[in-house]
Parts: sequence; C-alpha cells; structure tokens
Amino acid sequence: MFIDHLSIIGVGLIGGSLARALRKAGCVNRVTGCNQSVDTLKKARALAVIDDYTLAVNEAVADADVVVMATPLITTEKLLPQIVESLKPGAILTDVGSAKGSVVSVARGVMGDKFPFFIPGHPIAGTEQSGVEASFATLFIDHRVILTPLSDTNLEALKLITEMWQAVGADVINLDVEHHDEMLAATSHLPHLLAYTLVDCLADMQAREEIFKYTAGGFADFTRIAASSPEMWHDICFSNRLAILNALKNFACHINKITHTIENSDSETLLAFFQRAKNARDKLTPRT
Amino acid sequence: MFIDHLSIIGVGLIGGSLARALRKAGCVNRVTGCNQSVDTLKKARALAVIDDYTLAVNEAVADADVVVMATPLITTEKLLPQIVESLKPGAILTDVGSAKGSVVSVARGVMGDKFPFFIPGHPIAGTEQSGVEASFATLFIDHRVILTPLSDTNLEALKLITEMWQAVGADVINLDVEHHDEMLAATSHLPHLLAYTLVDCLADMQAREEIFKYTAGGFADFTRIAASSPEMWHDICFSNRLAILNALKNFACHINKITHTIENSDSETLLAFFQRAKNARDKLTPRT
Repeated sequence: MFIDHLSIIGVGLIGGSLARALRKAGCVNRVTGCNQSVDTLKKARALAVIDDYTLAVNEAVADADVVVMATPLITTEKLLPQIVESLKPGAILTDVGSAKGSVVSVARGVMGDKFPFFIPGHPIAGTEQSGVEASFATLFIDHRVILTPLSDTNLEALKLITEMWQAVGADVINLDVEHHDEMLAATSHLPHLLAYTLVDCLADMQAREEIFKYTAGGFADFTRIAASSPEMWHDICFSNRLAILNALKNFACHINKITHTIENSDSETLLAFFQRAKNARDKLTPRT
Repeated sequence: MFIDHLSIIGVGLIGGSLARALRKAGCVNRVTGCNQSVDTLKKARALAVIDDYTLAVNEAVADADVVVMATPLITTEKLLPQIVESLKPGAILTDVGSAKGSVVSVARGVMGDKFPFFIPGHPIAGTEQSGVEASFATLFIDHRVILTPLSDTNLEALKLITEMWQAVGADVINLDVEHHDEMLAATSHLPHLLAYTLVDCLADMQAREEIFKYTAGGFADFTRIAASSPEMWHDICFSNRLAILNALKNFACHINKITHTIENSDSETLLAFFQRAKNARDKLTPRT
C-alpha cells in the first residue's frame, strides 16, 4: 500500500494523526493539507504533518490520489460537492465521521458515478484534545476502524482504504451503515451524552462549587469524556439524530425501571440488576 | 495519636487498609479483627493486617479503645446493638459507610448514653476490588474522609478519629449528615447507578455480544465503576434511598430536556448545553 498524493481536508487531531502515521510508516509521498484556518495549516507544516497546503478545497483535491475528509460532520453537506467537483476520476474519497448514515446519504446525492470511490469510514480513536498540535502518529494502533461499504462500492478502493488503516496499526472491520450508527449511538454517543448531562445536572445544584470538591475518582473517570469538544458533540447529535434519540429513550426507560425498583425497596430485583451489569462489565475487562 | 487496642469489625478492603495504614504509621498497638468468615480472618492474620481475631462481636469489642465498623451498610441494624452492649465506657465507635443518615438514626436509637462516642465517618476511597487481599496501607493518602458529627458528639472522640484518619494521610472534613447524603447521592451514587444502567441497557440489546466488541476507551472509563460489588451498591441504595431517588429523578428530568432539544433540532440550546458542561468539567481537572 502506497499513496503518492494524499490530501487531508481538516488537519486536526484525526487528520493530523493519520498524516503523521502514514508518513512514519513510509506509505505516502506527498501530503497536502486544507483547512479553514491558515494558522492551523502553518502549524501543521511547521510540525511536518503536511508538505504543503492550500485554503481552496478544489486545489487541495485536484491532484490527489486519496482524499481524507476529516472535518466536523456538520460541514459534510457544504464540503462534499466542492470535493467531488475537483476529484480526479478513480481518486478515492474517505471520511472519518462518527455517524455514517447522514454522510452516505449526502454522498450518494452529490457524487454520481464517483460514488463507488467513496469509502465511508470511522476510526474509533481520539482523545479529549483536539487540533493538529494534539495529533500523534500512534493514535490508531490497536484501535478499530469501521468501514461501511455499500453494495456499489468499488472493491479496489475499499481494499486500498482498508490497507491504509492497517498500515497505521488499526484493526479494520466492515459494518452496515445502519448497524454502525445504532451501535455507535449506544456505545459512544449515549455515554457521552450521559456524562455531559451528569455534569450539567450537578452544575445546576445549589451547592455547585462545593459539590465538585467532594467528587471522588469514579466521578472523574465517568465524566472525563464530558471534556471533549462541544462543537463536535453538537454535530454528532444532528448527524446521528434518530439512533441517538432511540438510545436516549431506551436509557430513560431503564432509569425509570431502576427508580421504581428503589422506590419499591425491591431488594431482589435490585441485587439482580447490579449483578447482571457487573457480569456484563467484567467480560469487557480484557479490552480496557 | 495512639490507639492501644483497635478492633476492626469487617476486615475487607477499607477495614484492612485502615489497619495496615495505622500499623505502618506506628499509631496502634494491637489490632483485633472480627468477621463473619473465619477464612477471611485467617487470611488477614497471615497478611499481618490483624494481630488476633474472633468471630464473636462482643469479644472483639469488649477490650477495644476504638472500634471501626467496616461492614456492609445493611448489617448496621443487626451489628450495632451487639457492639454497643460490649463497648467499654469511653471507648469510641466509628464507621465507614457511604450513607450517614440511616446509620446515625440506628445509632441514636440503640446507643443511649454511648451515642456521643459514635463518630459517623466516610472515607471517600476505594477500588473496584474488595476483600482483605485487596487492602493496602496507602489507600487513604490524599483522599477525603468526611465525618458527620452531631450536636451531642463528644469532642475528644471526634478529635481522636480526626487524628486517626489524618495519621493515614487523609484530608478530614466535617459535614452535616443530610448534606453528606445529598452530596454523595449526586457525586457518587448517581454516577454508579448510571454506569450500571448503561451496561444493563447495552446487555439488553439484540446485538449484545457484538456491541461490547465495538466499545471504545470512553465507554470503558465510563463503566469501570460498574465493576464494583453488587451487594455493596444494593445496600447503598437502601441506606441512602431518599437522596438517591431525588438524584435519579433530577437526572431523568435533565435527560428528558436534552432528548427534547435533539428532537426539536434546537442547535443553539444543544451547543450551549455541551459548552456549559465542558466548562464545569474543565474546572475539575486539577483533582482528577
């Protein structure tokens, strides 16, 4: 696997880390960066994350063999038509968004006969940091990357993007679009929303200053993910809206059930609930 | 601060760690252990956590200067009358339960003129492990211990228990009983219930085997606390029932609010919510 000319649209934590990792693996010749902010691009250049840069999407894309769209999900609708217009025939486009249904639907609408060369992707990796300064070459090692190819996806393109992620240490799997979105809503989007809601809940309490003083380690663990980028999570809620709403409603039902169990002092049901959850959680241990 | 004869009722993670730490600090002469299981006591003796042991509460307590009740909260009602019966006049009793209202109410009912020598306590420390094998001398260093003295608490007794916890490295503060329980419900009991509920929620899904495969780091962090002892959390739900029910209902309101915001695609409110929570969480950083 070798990419002669890679173009990264959105040189942040994910885009920057992918560029660094591919360069480190010797899998890329030239990396062009494209970003809204010229300061970011200068920084990325100074950090040797990219070789050259441009503020113009069409320029960034025109000569590229592979284009990685690593911008906030909300920008997809605006960016995709610009990218597609300048994409060489046979050049491959992939993305890194954590919701796939909305991206695929926009891509199908605007890409026409280039659609088979769009490989929807989602690396399950990240930190609470964002920006190119926070990027690092080992971010994807032993992390999963989910690709959601469609029935009309070009298999050569799928193979190349699979190998690209494998080259930076990731474990690549394929899933259906809907399956991906439902799964991510449950395992990532919902926990993030709960953490944000918990912090907001406590910040609303009368004794707010004091209350944060008495929080123990468990609380810090639980809410660490609520320090992620508000803009990103705002976008995710829009891009995976239906699956997230289902997950939230399902969680609310479970919370009501446990509230009633405590209200009724139903000792047996309560203990069974804790035991069942602990058993399920313990199975996870090898991956933590 | 020196305790000639310390008696630990319930030689588990907390009781065992306190005994180890006091011994390491040279603050105790003799430690007697008392437990339901003789195997645990033999193990504790072999690990030099205790000097001697007995299965009989009255024997364990009779000669002690300080008695630490470190048993599950649910045992309080059964244990306290037995302890009180054999407690020397002037001997001090303290506990480590994470809910204080219910313990104080039982103690006031059965202790009579010994009640001023009961110092309700709660070390905010622990791991997901339990049992004396998991105990270690440094568990309390830089952790908070909350004491909830009453208006009729003996001040000399309060001073000694304060110094006991300080001797093992803890930061001791005093709070009202109600205030403690409300605070702990919000910052510890609620997050634990949410983590257990989230795991239970996912375990209920059709794709349960698969779903746990795709969980990322954030999920593991978030649900780590759901690996704690089911029995302990069952007991806490009963011992701090009202404060926990309030916290759960308050959280359910917040979850409904955020669900409606997403349902209505209310971009501005959603972004403000994430931003507010991130700001509150970021303030926590120095303590994590």
